[in-house]
Amino acid sequence: MFSDNHKTAGVAYPQGFTAAGVRAGIKKNGNLDVAVIYTEREAAVAGVFTKNLVAAAPVHLSKIVVNTGTAHAVVANAGCANACTGEQGVKDAEKMAELTARELGCRADDVIVASTGLIGSNLPMDKMAAGIKDAVSKLSKDGSVNAGNAIVTTDTYSKACATEIELGGVEVRFGAIAKGSGMIRPDMATMLCFITTDADIDQKLLQAALREITEVSFNCVSVDGDMSTNDMVVVLANGAAGNKKIVDKGADYQKFYDTLKSICVEMAKRIAADGEGATKFITLNVTGAKSFADAKQVGMAVANSPLCKSAIFGHDSNVGRFICAVGYSGVKIIPEKVIIKFGGITAYEKGLVTKFDADAMRKVLAEHDIVIDIELGLGSAQATVYTCDLSFQYIKINADYTT
Amino acid sequence: MFSDNHKTAGVAYPQGFTAAGVRAGIKKNGNLDVAVIYTEREAAVAGVFTKNLVAAAPVHLSKIVVNTGTAHAVVANAGCANACTGEQGVKDAEKMAELTARELGCRADDVIVASTGLIGSNLPMDKMAAGIKDAVSKLSKDGSVNAGNAIVTTDTYSKACATEIELGGVEVRFGAIAKGSGMIRPDMATMLCFITTDADIDQKLLQAALREITEVSFNCVSVDGDMSTNDMVVVLANGAAGNKKIVDKGADYQKFYDTLKSICVEMAKRIAADGEGATKFITLNVTGAKSFADAKQVGMAVANSPLCKSAIFGHDSNVGRFICAVGYSGVKIIPEKVIIKFGGITAYEKGLVTKFDADAMRKVLAEHDIVIDIELGLGSAQATVYTCDLSFQYIKINADYTT
Repeated sequence: MFSDNHKTAGVAYPQGFTAAGVRAGIKKNGNLDVAVIYTEREAAVAGVFTKNLVAAAPVHLSKIVVNTGTAHAVVANAGCANACTGEQGVKDAEKMAELTARELGCRADDVIVASTGLIGSNLPMDKMAAGIKDAVSKLSKDGSVNAGNAIVTTDTYSKACATEIELGGVEVRFGAIAKGSGMIRPDMATMLCFITTDADIDQKLLQAALREITEVSFNCVSVDGDMSTNDMVVVLANGAAGNKKIVDKGADYQKFYDTLKSICVEMAKRIAADGEGATKFITLNVTGAKSFADAKQVGMAVANSPLCKSAIFGHDSNVGRFICAVGYSGVKIIPEKVIIKFGGITAYEKGLVTKFDADAMRKVLAEHDIVIDIELGLGSAQATVYTCDLSFQYIKINADYTT
Repeated sequence: MFSDNHKTAGVAYPQGFTAAGVRAGIKKNGNLDVAVIYTEREAAVAGVFTKNLVAAAPVHLSKIVVNTGTAHAVVANAGCANACTGEQGVKDAEKMAELTARELGCRADDVIVASTGLIGSNLPMDKMAAGIKDAVSKLSKDGSVNAGNAIVTTDTYSKACATEIELGGVEVRFGAIAKGSGMIRPDMATMLCFITTDADIDQKLLQAALREITEVSFNCVSVDGDMSTNDMVVVLANGAAGNKKIVDKGADYQKFYDTLKSICVEMAKRIAADGEGATKFITLNVTGAKSFADAKQVGMAVANSPLCKSAIFGHDSNVGRFICAVGYSGVKIIPEKVIIKFGGITAYEKGLVTKFDADAMRKVLAEHDIVIDIELGLGSAQATVYTCDLSFQYIKINADYTT
């Protein structure tokens, strides 16, 4: 579904969208750090934002833009989060929108603003102004790769994808870029993700779809249990494909919804797989729960357990730590009903750590992708949670990431 | 208050108590691994236990002993947790009590049983039987150091203390040993701690005092956010001091309570300071909260944040991560009212990261003991939470601690 060809096209794959990423000197290492995504045709906009009470200035501003229902552009930077920056931070975020709007010839409240990076320092606005001007001048159908690289921080690679579907004989395209890495956890988008589509869809339906989908994609990822001040996922739908506008939850909506969901799940998985210092990508399938919320809570307890995560780093199933985390998750489990499997091999059942084939288990744990099934035996609800292991490198990155 | 002299006396410091620790071959490294604490005079017993739904067999058994109100002995081992061991685990825990009771000439339901170590494997009962026999034969007033060493796992040192007070002209003594290290977190004792006293006190008062005190001592410690299957704190009070029995909440009770609290807080602090891989001991004073529960919740969000903990490991205040954790704690804080100080130096105030003296901050963060004040500005309740940093060594210990 997500071919490499499409991936490089990213957010500029849908008709009417262009993108750019430039070096403005905001990142200390001199890498790309300012991105602009643009659609001349007005787009319906939807967004989901961090629930952290210490939200950054750009989060507050972008919520207002989403509330207007429409947008023409996204401007984003990495290297400075513009969080805990008070009045100056608010002015700087507003200025980013104004500068972008002036260059593009749209209104400032048509510009989504996002920042990521170090908390507590002010944006260098002279560099930002030059960067925005430069980025707008470079907007193109080939600009998504640079835009994607301009929003990463400690990510080891930029996350991007693109795909298309047919709605009533019309091709409708989707593209996305995202950054993740540290401060990734439940209960919010927990990263930056920008999704573009040339579908024509009612804004309220788009917002409702995004909110639902976020719950089973980005909100099911945990790298370290921390929730960032700057997280957002934003969708722009500009209608350039010319499909019959989606105005109700019919067949076209379902097709659109499924595609948006598959993009969000794909990006969520890539964010987990590229968690800070990750050497393993872990998929936790929690089944047999009484509700989705219960299943997710159990999955998150395991995903947030340093003991479970460092066991996987050490290629050790140590299922005792996993059933222990299930036991303190807060969900009323019955230990004797729980079954835990690593790569299909049962390691815990009927209240006991089972005797399994150690060689087969070693092979499972030597893989990069580890699938852990946790069957609760209490109901029929399920959730899938994505995470990574906890390695020396995580500590190194976060002890050295200096203020 | 807690002299080194007293510390070596530990749980055998109060009149009528003896202790021993022996090598039974349960720990792979051949260290001391079976401990017995004994009082010939029947003691009032109180206990607080893990809330983990996957509690180990000895936890279930010891709860029953506490419910009888009296006890004569504690038998504990390290190296095998006897958790997730099903029916066999229950039988083995019962057998530990029976073997100890037989050697001591008391009833099996007078013996508190505790185990710590790897989850999921069965106790080697032949070794255990020989170990218990050996330990009982070695019970003495000098045995507390060995008993303390017999209950540690990845602890780098055994925690012990002892002290005395005067109640109505009579000297009343207290002693304690504890183990902590990994799987240390809120919501329970989260470790093993055995406290002895020769005070004469009503069992129900003792139990109520211990429960209250646990909330502000052991339940305010977090090393890694994991909650163990085996945690318990148990107090034995044998009345050998001959004080006028404490039967109500008068002056004697208050003096007893304050002493028991200071012991529990001291042991909690030592457990945090010796968290797995810890290079720093962190005290989080959360003030200005609307309730103790709110203050504790904020402190725990910081104490459980890998980002905050690895920043301290890297000698970096990075206050953005701290206010971020305060923001997602779930407590309704107002970012502009929060003040965060490291060693008395204000790093965050009025919604902003402040400009502080970097040299002075470096000195604060170079110390082993770091005090962080978080003032919420919302009320007058407070809580103190104890934790440690997150280091390479934590990962090494937990990746290598093999099943």
